[in-house]
Amino acid sequence: MDASVPAIVINRLPLYLRALDLMVENDQRLTSSQELAEWLGISSAQIRKDLSHFGEFGKQGTGYEVPFLRDQLRSILNVDQLWDMAVVGAGALGHALVNYGGFAHRSFRVRAVFDVDPDKIGQSINGMAIESQTVMVERLQTMEIKIALLAVPVRAAQHVADLLVKGGVRAILSYAPITITVPNGIQLAYIDPVVALQSMTYYLTPVVT
Amino acid sequence: MDASVPAIVINRLPLYLRALDLMVENDQRLTSSQELAEWLGISSAQIRKDLSHFGEFGKQGTGYEVPFLRDQLRSILNVDQLWDMAVVGAGALGHALVNYGGFAHRSFRVRAVFDVDPDKIGQSINGMAIESQTVMVERLQTMEIKIALLAVPVRAAQHVADLLVKGGVRAILSYAPITITVPNGIQLAYIDPVVALQSMTYYLTPVVT
Repeated sequence: MDASVPAIVINRLPLYLRALDLMVENDQRLTSSQELAEWLGISSAQIRKDLSHFGEFGKQGTGYEVPFLRDQLRSILNVDQLWDMAVVGAGALGHALVNYGGFAHRSFRVRAVFDVDPDKIGQSINGMAIESQTVMVERLQTMEIKIALLAVPVRAAQHVADLLVKGGVRAILSYAPITITVPNGIQLAYIDPVVALQSMTYYLTPVVT
Repeated sequence: MDASVPAIVINRLPLYLRALDLMVENDQRLTSSQELAEWLGISSAQIRKDLSHFGEFGKQGTGYEVPFLRDQLRSILNVDQLWDMAVVGAGALGHALVNYGGFAHRSFRVRAVFDVDPDKIGQSINGMAIESQTVMVERLQTMEIKIALLAVPVRAAQHVADLLVKGGVRAILSYAPITITVPNGIQLAYIDPVVALQSMTYYLTPVVT
């Protein structure tokens, strides 16, 4: 981890990795910053500049070797290992996250699910028993889980985030539509569908009603 | 809509709008590109440059008027109107989307839910009846729905996207972890939690197992 690399550069690396993963799946051996630019809608100069923070990956005239650059990015992003995650909130969203097919093969797996509802605790999702939030801090520590997906109602989000940090979690991905505060050094990101929707409505013709 | 503005600039506008919405909620009257930069982790020069595509919003020395800039961004992004949306797939994720509290007050509302499962059709989520996918194309046209949230399994995603386009949908937000193809002029975005997770693992100490 190089703290001098701007966060906005780091945020683009997973997009490069996703494109490269697809190329590897299609047995593509070589790519270029121009091709990546076309796939991703980011300028080729920006892509070359972003990658140059981490070394010299391309060869003049031949471009990038796809499997090599993919492996380098996996290593830079620390996803050349499997990360265990906890899901907090066993409602509809929690169920969807436990069953999500996009984690497998992309270095993440859900290993624990917590909720406060006595009716849910003990039931299972995809073979995993829902555990009580009262044992969460201890369980997170024992299982050494460092990443959590926050799928609780807005009113509970900050309190649960505090508990997660207490349990040793270092990165929280929150689905709750509310701003959360975490101590320095704890990573926090939000899944906000409205941000994605508003980028698209820009291109739509307003509806006259 | 100005087609000459790069997509990457458009993608940042909702982040500015979200920050401004929060400032309005807190009755803050003035802000600056420096303050926005601090909130969002984007450089103040970039923010000024992004906004300059659309006009002269700030005043030398006083910065930006929060409610004014918020309203301008809402207008630019076409979210000064309410957009009706359809959810396709009434599984756990579909339920979570219909019940999501982040759409209200942010210019979006779910007006229809579709599924193929005979056991689900006719049941209701949050007071809304789940309709059969067989009537979806016609219903989308009648209701003039232009935006859809795709919450179906991977194997169905492309077929359903085709139906949505046939029904007149112009923007699709897909939760399926698979690449979808749509005709030119149709907007497509993905919700991919792994991209957000990988931006955070960069900052984590790898776990030795």
